[in-house]
Amino acid sequence: MKKILVLGAGRSSSALISYLIKNAPANNWQITVGDISLAAAQERIASSAHATAIEFNLENVEGSKTAISQTDVVISLVPASFHPLVARYCLSEKKHLLTASYVSDEMKSFDVEAKSKGLLFLNECGLDPGIDHMSAMQVIDKIKSEGGQISSFESFTGGLIAPDTDPQNPWRYKFTWNPRNVVLAGQGTAKFLQDGSYKYIPYQQLFQRTTPISVPGFGEYEGYANRDSLKYVDVYGLYDCKTILRGTLRNKGYCSAWHVLAQLGCCDDTYPMEDVKSLSHADFIYSFLNGNDNVEDELCKRFAISTDGEEMTRLRWSGLFTAEKIGLEKGTPAQILEHILNKKWKLNSGDKDFIVMWHRFGYLLNGKRKEIQAWLTATGEDETQTAMAKTVGLPLAIACKLLFQDKIRSKGVVIPVIKEIYEPVLEELKTLGIGLEEKEINRI
Amino acid sequence: MKKILVLGAGRSSSALISYLIKNAPANNWQITVGDISLAAAQERIASSAHATAIEFNLENVEGSKTAISQTDVVISLVPASFHPLVARYCLSEKKHLLTASYVSDEMKSFDVEAKSKGLLFLNECGLDPGIDHMSAMQVIDKIKSEGGQISSFESFTGGLIAPDTDPQNPWRYKFTWNPRNVVLAGQGTAKFLQDGSYKYIPYQQLFQRTTPISVPGFGEYEGYANRDSLKYVDVYGLYDCKTILRGTLRNKGYCSAWHVLAQLGCCDDTYPMEDVKSLSHADFIYSFLNGNDNVEDELCKRFAISTDGEEMTRLRWSGLFTAEKIGLEKGTPAQILEHILNKKWKLNSGDKDFIVMWHRFGYLLNGKRKEIQAWLTATGEDETQTAMAKTVGLPLAIACKLLFQDKIRSKGVVIPVIKEIYEPVLEELKTLGIGLEEKEINRI
Repeated sequence: MKKILVLGAGRSSSALISYLIKNAPANNWQITVGDISLAAAQERIASSAHATAIEFNLENVEGSKTAISQTDVVISLVPASFHPLVARYCLSEKKHLLTASYVSDEMKSFDVEAKSKGLLFLNECGLDPGIDHMSAMQVIDKIKSEGGQISSFESFTGGLIAPDTDPQNPWRYKFTWNPRNVVLAGQGTAKFLQDGSYKYIPYQQLFQRTTPISVPGFGEYEGYANRDSLKYVDVYGLYDCKTILRGTLRNKGYCSAWHVLAQLGCCDDTYPMEDVKSLSHADFIYSFLNGNDNVEDELCKRFAISTDGEEMTRLRWSGLFTAEKIGLEKGTPAQILEHILNKKWKLNSGDKDFIVMWHRFGYLLNGKRKEIQAWLTATGEDETQTAMAKTVGLPLAIACKLLFQDKIRSKGVVIPVIKEIYEPVLEELKTLGIGLEEKEINRI
Repeated sequence: MKKILVLGAGRSSSALISYLIKNAPANNWQITVGDISLAAAQERIASSAHATAIEFNLENVEGSKTAISQTDVVISLVPASFHPLVARYCLSEKKHLLTASYVSDEMKSFDVEAKSKGLLFLNECGLDPGIDHMSAMQVIDKIKSEGGQISSFESFTGGLIAPDTDPQNPWRYKFTWNPRNVVLAGQGTAKFLQDGSYKYIPYQQLFQRTTPISVPGFGEYEGYANRDSLKYVDVYGLYDCKTILRGTLRNKGYCSAWHVLAQLGCCDDTYPMEDVKSLSHADFIYSFLNGNDNVEDELCKRFAISTDGEEMTRLRWSGLFTAEKIGLEKGTPAQILEHILNKKWKLNSGDKDFIVMWHRFGYLLNGKRKEIQAWLTATGEDETQTAMAKTVGLPLAIACKLLFQDKIRSKGVVIPVIKEIYEPVLEELKTLGIGLEEKEINRI
């Protein structure tokens, strides 16, 4: 029997836990789900005979170590900032660790010790990061093996809502993962390579400098640059590449409306606002404007946008100009904006989310300029079994199975850019309905 | 004999040291000027028999304490971040301390000990902060003593260049104090009160949301909000005031051109740029733009500004679009921008700077709405005896004299908002050519 400890029973865990429970009998697995809320863990496992729910608090050192000592592998979905702590417990108890979080410098520092103990610390094995790495590396390795030289790489991923969900919602967007991260998205400076030059986009320009994206069979989207595209030179081995741009995909119009909020200062998380409890939604917006007209007119004047235009339609739909009280005692602008948006952007019963991932590779093969586009979409079943939960959780679950089958031989701190991981994971994902499509184009 | 130790012989120290040397014989003062560069200290004292130059390094604990133990008062012009350290030396050696820096939380924490030792730690006693406090409090106390109720307070100060200096310079601006602070100015969020509402301006909006300022007899200026105007409710006792706005004054057109640089991300000091040594001025700007046209055209497109317009005229004059190499090996955007601007913005021989300070007070007196405007200007003599050095240094020098004459009885951490300080300092400043003018207006 193999034992799996899943940490975190939050919104990304549903598909992971369902997969593990479903595959437990055939594989002789015993699953434990630990969460700071025992009720949340219990809800996830329902009445399965192959799973147990426990209360799990990472700050309880002895309890954490005991639970981890009794498993074979830890799959952790707790917030990324806790992963160094989880990794330290796994080192002391000599257990493998799988996460969907970015490798931090601290996580990287555990590489030598994990290797020496024969442990796999597989990170960035969800959707983004995760499936993006795997699907990109599959194409990159294929182009290279044919003798092609990659000159440009662009990649965008987004978690949206399905076309038939909430048809009145002009953003075509709801909170399908951590809302706080959505509000804070893009802060800092985006860095990328364009035609051989380093380019920088500060936060205040980010939502204006979007890239149009056309996904064959699905339509037109737009993307804004992620913080650091430059690291993919090393991560993907793209040393001759002149253009490297990774970003976040949204439905058209999202960015120009969000730009207004970012420009106003509504996404600032660095200071508490004054007298929050007396403010309405409209007062909140007005505190970033001056003048004597009503809030909508002042906003239109400031950004030279039309009161009937797309930006105002989206902002108005979000209830940002109403006299409704915010309903918080205190908060930063970002916390208040998240709270207001959540009133309209929360997934309702029956809502389905929708993931779109799109890559474009330009390359030179036998003296000819060519291009490959590869894309993937996934639709959620409902507001719990979301496409986000499937695409984040299933790669982790499959990787766990492969580890138990001794098909992943790598040790230490690893991300899924290596063939022994991405090939079987992508293959099984395809059988689960999450497959990439590809088209090749001869560029002129 | 009274002994004075001046720390820091940088660009703000010239007028302070000249005043002290000039007044030394009549007052029986002995002055010591300490700087990390002995040569700089020597240059300031020239051949005066009343002054000595020493090498002074704050990180040398014993040397610092010995020098401070031999004086009666320390006047410090070292960078503000060192003032807690200077204050700790002054506490241990039981010496008074005078600075022109803002009171930090750490400085505030020394209040009890300074009081118990009978020491004056007078801070914010330069120009801004300094003369601004003194001149504002003089008017505020006058209005209150007449029974008036102050409803609004606006105050702007700027260090510019004299009308006859560098007449081709379209910014009407040069670096007359720390250039780094000019480039970083305004980062964070400006907070103020407007008609009873709290208002917030994020950095990205700051240089667009300017206030027009008309200084009687001097012309039209513009101002952008300083970071925290709200603290002046307490500092000046403006508890019934509905509008409180403090800011920085510039010549018209400065802000809309600087807005372009701030929006582009050129003032960001948080990350090092790549491959700096190969970049020209134009490359630097282009790394914040995309497209294929030349840098000027791309910039005009991005900001919807005219190639012949005021913004482009200023930016072009600053050499930002030339093929000249930057001349740095590495740097953040802010460091690089400072380096490029300094090629044109450095004070040349004979250049004169020009200080403008302007306050406006709205108040209710006997049921009538009234307004007082008060303003001050000062022109430098040359590129060394600047108006900046005079207005920063003379209040400190005068305060030192008053302290020796036992006219300042306050102890502990103090700023010059109290009558016993501001009245005699302003009175003597007037005799030195730095006087405020005032006009009273009946509002309709």
